[in-house]
Amino acid sequence: MINSNALRALQNALGSEVTTDKSSLFKASFDTMKLSFMPEAVILPKSPASIGTALKIANEFRMPITPRGAGSTLTGSATPLKGGWVLDLTNLNNITIDKFNKLAHVQAGAITGDIQKAAIEHDLFYPPDPSSSSFCTIGGNIACNAGGLRGIKYGVTRDYVVALKGFLPNGEPVAWGRPLKKFTSGYNIRDLWIGSEGTLGVITEAVLKLIPKPQASRTFLAYFVDDQAALLGAQALLQTGLIPSVLEFMDVLTVLGVEQATHIDDQPIFHHAILLIELDGHPAVIEDETTLLVHWAADCTTKFIQAATQEEITALWHTRRACSAAMFQHGNSKLNEDVVVPLDQTVELIEFIQKISQEKNLKIPTFGHVGDGNFHVNIMYNREDKAACKHAEEALQSLMEFVIELGGAITGEHGIGLAKTPFFKLQHTKAEINAMLAIKNALDPVGILNPGKIFSPFKTWDYTPISINMPWEKKKFL
Amino acid sequence: MINSNALRALQNALGSEVTTDKSSLFKASFDTMKLSFMPEAVILPKSPASIGTALKIANEFRMPITPRGAGSTLTGSATPLKGGWVLDLTNLNNITIDKFNKLAHVQAGAITGDIQKAAIEHDLFYPPDPSSSSFCTIGGNIACNAGGLRGIKYGVTRDYVVALKGFLPNGEPVAWGRPLKKFTSGYNIRDLWIGSEGTLGVITEAVLKLIPKPQASRTFLAYFVDDQAALLGAQALLQTGLIPSVLEFMDVLTVLGVEQATHIDDQPIFHHAILLIELDGHPAVIEDETTLLVHWAADCTTKFIQAATQEEITALWHTRRACSAAMFQHGNSKLNEDVVVPLDQTVELIEFIQKISQEKNLKIPTFGHVGDGNFHVNIMYNREDKAACKHAEEALQSLMEFVIELGGAITGEHGIGLAKTPFFKLQHTKAEINAMLAIKNALDPVGILNPGKIFSPFKTWDYTPISINMPWEKKKFL
Repeated sequence: MINSNALRALQNALGSEVTTDKSSLFKASFDTMKLSFMPEAVILPKSPASIGTALKIANEFRMPITPRGAGSTLTGSATPLKGGWVLDLTNLNNITIDKFNKLAHVQAGAITGDIQKAAIEHDLFYPPDPSSSSFCTIGGNIACNAGGLRGIKYGVTRDYVVALKGFLPNGEPVAWGRPLKKFTSGYNIRDLWIGSEGTLGVITEAVLKLIPKPQASRTFLAYFVDDQAALLGAQALLQTGLIPSVLEFMDVLTVLGVEQATHIDDQPIFHHAILLIELDGHPAVIEDETTLLVHWAADCTTKFIQAATQEEITALWHTRRACSAAMFQHGNSKLNEDVVVPLDQTVELIEFIQKISQEKNLKIPTFGHVGDGNFHVNIMYNREDKAACKHAEEALQSLMEFVIELGGAITGEHGIGLAKTPFFKLQHTKAEINAMLAIKNALDPVGILNPGKIFSPFKTWDYTPISINMPWEKKKFL
Repeated sequence: MINSNALRALQNALGSEVTTDKSSLFKASFDTMKLSFMPEAVILPKSPASIGTALKIANEFRMPITPRGAGSTLTGSATPLKGGWVLDLTNLNNITIDKFNKLAHVQAGAITGDIQKAAIEHDLFYPPDPSSSSFCTIGGNIACNAGGLRGIKYGVTRDYVVALKGFLPNGEPVAWGRPLKKFTSGYNIRDLWIGSEGTLGVITEAVLKLIPKPQASRTFLAYFVDDQAALLGAQALLQTGLIPSVLEFMDVLTVLGVEQATHIDDQPIFHHAILLIELDGHPAVIEDETTLLVHWAADCTTKFIQAATQEEITALWHTRRACSAAMFQHGNSKLNEDVVVPLDQTVELIEFIQKISQEKNLKIPTFGHVGDGNFHVNIMYNREDKAACKHAEEALQSLMEFVIELGGAITGEHGIGLAKTPFFKLQHTKAEINAMLAIKNALDPVGILNPGKIFSPFKTWDYTPISINMPWEKKKFL
């Protein structure tokens, strides 16, 4: 339903920053979950001030506003579920490095990989490294508290956000935190915004902590007879006291999918689970850690390779880089989760996955950040097979219940969006959810910001995704 | 004013957990700011459940509740300003180390130093190290987001809090976060509680991140011709790329105060500013860093000492340990601030302090965590001298205005409490404060939790502190 008065007011205020052509509306109607809900306008602010203006008009007309960056979220958190206006922040993409204070001043639409590159040019390092870093925006990373490959040693996005600027849902400009090493004045709404998926405010700028660039790194690949052995191996590794910068697990099914998808036939790793390991830091520390690692490998791996050249590093990373896309060897549709379990419960998790996989007759390749207990569990099925759809849905419900039973989390780095809403009440008590909703209502009484996300159950499998590739999905295998 | 129905209801529900004898009430009537406001009862819960009960009764009777740990806060944040009931959490002091997952499970009343010791017994390390660590509680550290001596390398309390348990102001039990490496489900009320000074909920348990114990450390003391030279030296040190675990600045006046207070006459350091430096980590890294440090010292220090033995380490720490108490060489009263400025603005800060010191004829010894830009500015005066009191008050106002002008913070690690309330509006805009108050009202609609703190201006200098030593103040010089 078009609210023409509202749109007129918006256009009068923001002019060419507002577009309503069908192609723009369609592009803004979906994110990487690929459920399309058409908005009525797309706002492309040229400066942050326009955002305040748009929010004030939206409040007046009770118009939903969905902020978005690149739309690389897998959860539907940038889907304009209730129509209204999409606020596209990709044009606000400045990056400035403050070398003296080791800070990056960035706008929300800056690409995370561009921030990493800008930091490296000053011998500084922005550690958070979501797999999507070459195309996702920092605003989206902050909105969902993105994790990634270096969490085990370096933590997640939240650990690097020093200060935020943006707008309250009522359109007032605010700043949370300052570009300082310490700040403890008043309520920390900075960290309340981080991970709130664009429902409590619009982030326009962030100040990020940078650290000195690690002097050196080494890459290793370890092979194990099966998934359990790899996970026990990872646990043993973590008990040696060394903290790798990367510790990625890929189960047998994931490895198999990559082999089938990329037709690797030299050095077949068929029917092995693997751990990809990187060390970084001071060369002497890496040397000591390598010694520890070699002892560890002798105890529990069936094969252990250290990369000697850049080409070998790239080769060792091959399976990890290809695995997300290679999942589709096992079905044309996936329910892609990012659950977390305690570090000593990873074997319990994989055994449960193997059990439901058998019971439901589904392939469930699993890989991820084992050093964080954070796994991408990919429940694969063919959409045309109605029984498989139902089984996938049941398997997902069982998985989430089991993860909670283990003391785990339904999401470690993607956030709730739409995809995890059915499980939100498993994770949190009524009192906890009521406290969250009280905050939402206090800051956004009209409920304009990203409505329908996090709190209201939405069954994604009842909707048919559109058949379209996101720009970055064209090259499937690096 | 005694609300006898409320008290009767509380006593009926909690029995011997409630005390009303005068001595207990008096002890609970003040914290280290030493302004005494008598409560009507002290609740000493034997189990967390009693807290929920007490909060429900308090809501019913609109009774203020002030949570407290050891009362070591310098800001008055644990003062029962509005009377009511004090909730003393010191009996809830369990500490359990989970070595496998590198986590400490602690209750709010656990002493921070005891947590550090428990971790070390498992070769693990809890880095945050407020000067009060031997007597402050972790609940208080979390409530004010305490910093301390190792912030430069290891961050502050917030950086180590993985999960919290406690009670909403309405008495409902809640858990924010889980004992996991990653968690991004729903609103992050964990970090909203951290630093909210007991106004948004009562923290009963925390899960803390531990890290491997550093293998080695080295201690150094560097002398400079004056304050400016020491601060420029610190800036130069930070630009070498090395990150010390401790980098503490003491200005000439601070050093002088310690000399006068402790009658040191060997190795006189009269009229020097100093930097206390510690490196920690892998021995090879420390070796490299020491080389960098020696080069740096040759460039900018007048004297540079490395401790060779434990006794020498203790000697190098002497001035730092004694400086807080030694301030009273310069006056019988102090306004003790913990401002933060950007790392490249530290010289501007000290020159401003020197200027107002002259203008107002006050001694203002300054020391602190220069690697965080976080300074303890001690405005000293004699309470009996009315003109000096007024000058101190004016100096404080000017200081806070200047800190904000530099892009700094009015508090880096103590929080607002009562002491910083007059400057809160300098730090935050009306829109920001309104958002904070909206959250406060949403979670604590009756306003029972720690009323009068953070938001309402309170001029501490209009009140006379009581003449009493806190238990830990008996030994003034270590």
